[in-house]
Amino acid sequence: MNTGAFEIILASGSPRRKAFFEEMGIPFSQQVLPVEEVFPESLSGQAIVEHLVKLKAEPFKSQLKEKQLIITADTIVWHQNQCLGKPQNKKEAKQMLQALSGDTHQVMTAVGFLHKGGWDSLCCCSEVVFSNIKTADIDAYIATGSPLDKAGAYGIQDSFGIRFVNSIRGSYTNIIGLPVAQVFEKLEELTKKWATF
Amino acid sequence: MNTGAFEIILASGSPRRKAFFEEMGIPFSQQVLPVEEVFPESLSGQAIVEHLVKLKAEPFKSQLKEKQLIITADTIVWHQNQCLGKPQNKKEAKQMLQALSGDTHQVMTAVGFLHKGGWDSLCCCSEVVFSNIKTADIDAYIATGSPLDKAGAYGIQDSFGIRFVNSIRGSYTNIIGLPVAQVFEKLEELTKKWATF
Repeated sequence: MNTGAFEIILASGSPRRKAFFEEMGIPFSQQVLPVEEVFPESLSGQAIVEHLVKLKAEPFKSQLKEKQLIITADTIVWHQNQCLGKPQNKKEAKQMLQALSGDTHQVMTAVGFLHKGGWDSLCCCSEVVFSNIKTADIDAYIATGSPLDKAGAYGIQDSFGIRFVNSIRGSYTNIIGLPVAQVFEKLEELTKKWATF
Repeated sequence: MNTGAFEIILASGSPRRKAFFEEMGIPFSQQVLPVEEVFPESLSGQAIVEHLVKLKAEPFKSQLKEKQLIITADTIVWHQNQCLGKPQNKKEAKQMLQALSGDTHQVMTAVGFLHKGGWDSLCCCSEVVFSNIKTADIDAYIATGSPLDKAGAYGIQDSFGIRFVNSIRGSYTNIIGLPVAQVFEKLEELTKKWATF
């Protein structure tokens, strides 16, 4: 992929998304502009993450420079018609994990692409099946502090996720926060389309 | 899980399976006894890995000690009615990856459990969908040497796998070589069943 005509900016502070961009071998920098991450209550499922990636791109619009390609992303866990973001505290983390235990949920990520050539986005949904998890195992995981910066209060790549995620359907990296194969394909398309804009 | 009544021996030299056992938090040691890994041509799919985990347990039978719980494992890639093991050389690795590109294949792992209480096993199948992969990307991956010790000539956890595995269906860790959640549940069952044997 030829990204020479672009200055790619990952507008996400997530260390996991940063690591994926490094693995893709694409030159980029990281810059996050603050926004209040709110969405209308009327939205559900994918419409929430699609709304949030647009919102995260807003503050870049007025200062967008030549060559800049801004990439925003948002991930939520969707379970029984409810949106689970990052837990506010350990109590909420426990409630989330108890709700997810022994059940199936969806992980949805939207990724937005902003350039003077225009706006594009993609959305990816993966299904995750959890084993039945004992309260003692949930408590031990919460004690590590790991759940607090993660949507749905778990990381599939943690010891916890390795042990209790029974199966998935869809993109694995999407569950960590970025559907890498899908983003890579979209970037191949957009870097051609916008190269001569 | 209470594994105190057992001496668990992972009869696989795979560094990835070793890492998964460490993540499960179960005390174990690693010991591999040599066998010729062959199977009757009449076998196909899961029957192959089920045959091979039995074969790998054979040399332990005559020297099985009190408390020992031997765990064997075998993983193959199954594509268009063909079994892909580890490639013999770079040329074969390239043929495998070109065949898998843009297509769906299965990864099958069997895990065997040998104890004086008896024999048990499980088998797990995951489906993997590859993106279309350019020959240059295949060549670059083969040049790293990484494909040579992996069934089907790729690691889903490599930069290559992250970029080109579009989606999966089933256990993710199974694709790396061990269906961890399934093994964990089976061990909970067997350590109860065989504790008083």
